[in-house]
Amino acid sequence: MKSYIQEKIDVYKQQNENKARLLIKCPDRPGIVASVSQFLFEHGANIIDSSQYSQDPEGGEFFIRIEFECPDLKQKADEIEQDFEAIANEFSMDWKLMYVYNIKKMAIFVSKEPHALLELLWEWQSGDLMADIAMVVSNHETSREMVESLGIAFHYIPANKDIRKEVEQKQIELLKAHDIDLIVLARYMQILTPHFVETFKNKIINIHHSFLPAFVGANPYERAYRRGVKLIGATSHYVTNDLDEGPIIEQDISRVNHRDNAEDMRKIGQSIERSVLARAVKWHLQDRIIVHENKTIVF
Amino acid sequence: MKSYIQEKIDVYKQQNENKARLLIKCPDRPGIVASVSQFLFEHGANIIDSSQYSQDPEGGEFFIRIEFECPDLKQKADEIEQDFEAIANEFSMDWKLMYVYNIKKMAIFVSKEPHALLELLWEWQSGDLMADIAMVVSNHETSREMVESLGIAFHYIPANKDIRKEVEQKQIELLKAHDIDLIVLARYMQILTPHFVETFKNKIINIHHSFLPAFVGANPYERAYRRGVKLIGATSHYVTNDLDEGPIIEQDISRVNHRDNAEDMRKIGQSIERSVLARAVKWHLQDRIIVHENKTIVF
Amino acid sequence: MKSYIQEKIDVYKQQNENKARLLIKCPDRPGIVASVSQFLFEHGANIIDSSQYSQDPEGGEFFIRIEFECPDLKQKADEIEQDFEAIANEFSMDWKLMYVYNIKKMAIFVSKEPHALLELLWEWQSGDLMADIAMVVSNHETSREMVESLGIAFHYIPANKDIRKEVEQKQIELLKAHDIDLIVLARYMQILTPHFVETFKNKIINIHHSFLPAFVGANPYERAYRRGVKLIGATSHYVTNDLDEGPIIEQDISRVNHRDNAEDMRKIGQSIERSVLARAVKWHLQDRIIVHENKTIVF
Amino acid sequence: MKSYIQEKIDVYKQQNENKARLLIKCPDRPGIVASVSQFLFEHGANIIDSSQYSQDPEGGEFFIRIEFECPDLKQKADEIEQDFEAIANEFSMDWKLMYVYNIKKMAIFVSKEPHALLELLWEWQSGDLMADIAMVVSNHETSREMVESLGIAFHYIPANKDIRKEVEQKQIELLKAHDIDLIVLARYMQILTPHFVETFKNKIINIHHSFLPAFVGANPYERAYRRGVKLIGATSHYVTNDLDEGPIIEQDISRVNHRDNAEDMRKIGQSIERSVLARAVKWHLQDRIIVHENKTIVF
Repeated sequence: MKSYIQEKIDVYKQQNENKARLLIKCPDRPGIVASVSQFLFEHGANIIDSSQYSQDPEGGEFFIRIEFECPDLKQKADEIEQDFEAIANEFSMDWKLMYVYNIKKMAIFVSKEPHALLELLWEWQSGDLMADIAMVVSNHETSREMVESLGIAFHYIPANKDIRKEVEQKQIELLKAHDIDLIVLARYMQILTPHFVETFKNKIINIHHSFLPAFVGANPYERAYRRGVKLIGATSHYVTNDLDEGPIIEQDISRVNHRDNAEDMRKIGQSIERSVLARAVKWHLQDRIIVHENKTIVF
Repeated sequence: MKSYIQEKIDVYKQQNENKARLLIKCPDRPGIVASVSQFLFEHGANIIDSSQYSQDPEGGEFFIRIEFECPDLKQKADEIEQDFEAIANEFSMDWKLMYVYNIKKMAIFVSKEPHALLELLWEWQSGDLMADIAMVVSNHETSREMVESLGIAFHYIPANKDIRKEVEQKQIELLKAHDIDLIVLARYMQILTPHFVETFKNKIINIHHSFLPAFVGANPYERAYRRGVKLIGATSHYVTNDLDEGPIIEQDISRVNHRDNAEDMRKIGQSIERSVLARAVKWHLQDRIIVHENKTIVF
Repeated sequence: MKSYIQEKIDVYKQQNENKARLLIKCPDRPGIVASVSQFLFEHGANIIDSSQYSQDPEGGEFFIRIEFECPDLKQKADEIEQDFEAIANEFSMDWKLMYVYNIKKMAIFVSKEPHALLELLWEWQSGDLMADIAMVVSNHETSREMVESLGIAFHYIPANKDIRKEVEQKQIELLKAHDIDLIVLARYMQILTPHFVETFKNKIINIHHSFLPAFVGANPYERAYRRGVKLIGATSHYVTNDLDEGPIIEQDISRVNHRDNAEDMRKIGQSIERSVLARAVKWHLQDRIIVHENKTIVF
Repeated sequence: MKSYIQEKIDVYKQQNENKARLLIKCPDRPGIVASVSQFLFEHGANIIDSSQYSQDPEGGEFFIRIEFECPDLKQKADEIEQDFEAIANEFSMDWKLMYVYNIKKMAIFVSKEPHALLELLWEWQSGDLMADIAMVVSNHETSREMVESLGIAFHYIPANKDIRKEVEQKQIELLKAHDIDLIVLARYMQILTPHFVETFKNKIINIHHSFLPAFVGANPYERAYRRGVKLIGATSHYVTNDLDEGPIIEQDISRVNHRDNAEDMRKIGQSIERSVLARAVKWHLQDRIIVHENKTIVF
């Protein structure tokens, strides 16, 4: 299976070897778009797509995502990055240049419930989620067979709050050894320490099974049932040290009614969790998200 | 205008003079449906629609709503109600028999923002919200002209927390004088005292501008904006003494993104508030809602 | 894997050994509900759930689905069915009594695109789609490995319009040999002959990749793209001899915009196809659907 | 009422006196964004918002909408337009520069059903639909009172297919006399001749009560009911000479079920028609729509 996916990845890399994405955040002022687009033009790049957002044209932040194509990009990359420094300094830019052929390395953390993991693997198999899934990490053996059958490494690391530090140490070593760019918590039911979160800042995406900020914390379906809500939801967000308080990437909901008990809600909710997490992960992989303070700009 | 609506109401009453709705709540056990349907059959009634819900067939509550048609219903009504007592006692029923031609009397409370009021009036004019709108009560003069142009009484009762008791006294007198069955808080921005709420138990419907239980209390759009949510919502619920904690009738949401500030959310939200409140009010008028503990069964 | 599912199925059968569902279609007239519920009560059955629909109380059709529980149902089944004949005759009923423990036997037909098949198998593995998936039939080998890894028989039957008759002969033999109750066309790209359709009347569910009646026939995404629609959809329906004209069970849509080309629409659409087909199949397995003329009543 | 709206309009004009929107369509090639943004920068303009779409970077069309702010715009407008000709010629641009303070003049055509008209007027009153509604034209007197009560001119022009030419002559004179920029058919049930359509090319927005291309033509709800669909919808589009075939601007749907007859669908549908038409009209007024061949790009 892995070889079949690998082939898709290789085709994708080749097709996109001249494409890059430029993400910029800086104080708003006239001339930014003119300078950047002039720069790209002079370096032989053609803008394919561009989205921008001015928080407040008079004194707010300015955000832009530009996707461009440039012949011989690999050879020119260093030069482009060096030359861009001048503009970046002039406008006090916080910027990143991401090469599309640099497929991101991803680790998926999961506990017992496999639905969110399965959705990601399904999107990955069908070529719609372009990442190098380097490993699945779990505190349960449940998903091993399925994960390994796809040729993906499965690391069983038992965890509980008493051994949290040692567990995370092991996880961090593993993640660093594989240069992981993105950690997806696909219903991983362990709390992460500030140290772990800090180590992978804005690189951990979680799926929470409620429409936050409703039902922060444990057992949201049980609490939704007791409250008698008519909608249940799911929220994907970057993980910060405040539980379920990180920047929200995507949310969605589904209708429920008086006939649905907490268990029915859990089942209905799984379908929302799957799609909300998959959308958030894809947007991250496509460099569509800029985190600003405690919010996301999703282009 | 009122005469045009009155005509619609008269036609409706005549068309439905033989229709009634039976709402029952009782401990679940075998034989309830058999007894009730046999009873209706023996009294010459034909069941038009019926919905039921068993919380838990082994020992929970049972709920049923039956809509039936019965020739000469007006003459037979007393007899039916009397005869039904036997069944009601046998099964320990909490029941109500509502005659469709008994159009409910409704009062709408509103403060400054008129959108929810306007939606109700629009549905009422088009004949889709079958009620006798006896009055609009407001602590602002803003909507007077529009309300009176439709031939509806407008009562301006200034209100603030210092004079709450006197204000409510005046309101209660007015509502009782007109035998009001339903009070709709269409963005009425005053808190009601326990006394007022108790006086009209399960007869006050409010619209809250968030998907509860997120953003209970004041300024939900401002707080939604600060939290960076990707969905905003509205919730209609019966009013209890716990602020925004009453039984939820209906909820809905709309997507927002990073470009929408609190003011944009307020505008987008108005459209959800309008439809969520209108649906809840219509369901109440059609006797579709049974309140059980802090939840609603909506048939 | 199959043994794991088999275990779930066994638990389900045992938990539901006393449950049955009664589906009735007959001319509307007073006394139907009274007679049926009285009958069930006298036979010791407790109604758990009941939904009904009167097309037009004065002279239309009446439809009802009753789910009931009855101690020792297996021993009493014959007696109940025999005794019910009297009522059925009196009211000219078209009726079916389905025992919940009689898990339905299902065959899935698929061509190359596996997404709809995968969704069904995923729901089946998680215990949410309660069926005995007896076989997958395909005119391509693509899905063999995955299907067989779940312990399900995979039958590769090459097909094209020149050998349609022979192919269907083989398929019918196979389906009959396994007493198949439901055939799901999970993106099976071959047209079925009237003979095949007639053999399994109201037992074949198809997923069509458009919101019918828009884009009947081939290449709906290509045509949706050319027309510039802002919504794409999917429709599950029972198969009849008129292409894409059978009774619709379920539909849903997703938003697209000018950036989405036909290939993007195909990908977005797959997600709708998956959920729309899964819902339709589950409703069929739960005996929630009554076909009347060219429409479905879904309880 | 009109004076109250007029005040809002005046405030809006003043707040936006330095804002403009540039819409461009041209063959794609490198350097477009650089040239345009450099041009704006040199003329003292600050880009507030910008969206673009490349049909196909290698040889397709390129579309961009830029919203910018420029001090003393009114004095500079002529110079900007003149200077821009050079760039426009270089890149073979089809372009428009729209000044935000130039509020568009709008006429609404309606027949008997007032719901779509009412929604537009409601959005207009609340300041969310920024237009100068110069007149309502109708072939029925139904809405006169309501329209005139808002201070808007109401023109009753009886129409039928025998007098189509004369009727349209009268309408065209009226529209031209008031320099109408946009004609909204808010459920106007008369067919327009090619002459009328040609006179106001891409300036007539219609609301059709189905999700096109399903149910082109008359009585879509009746036909949706007969087909047994589970979704009904509405479509707003620019009017062309092919009935219901013009470029689609926006669509939406709502769920229906077997209980809903054609009349229920009509009522449910009205709510979709209202919001779909209002969104389309607002996008047009905000210069968000570029028509290309038979499609719309909506920025």
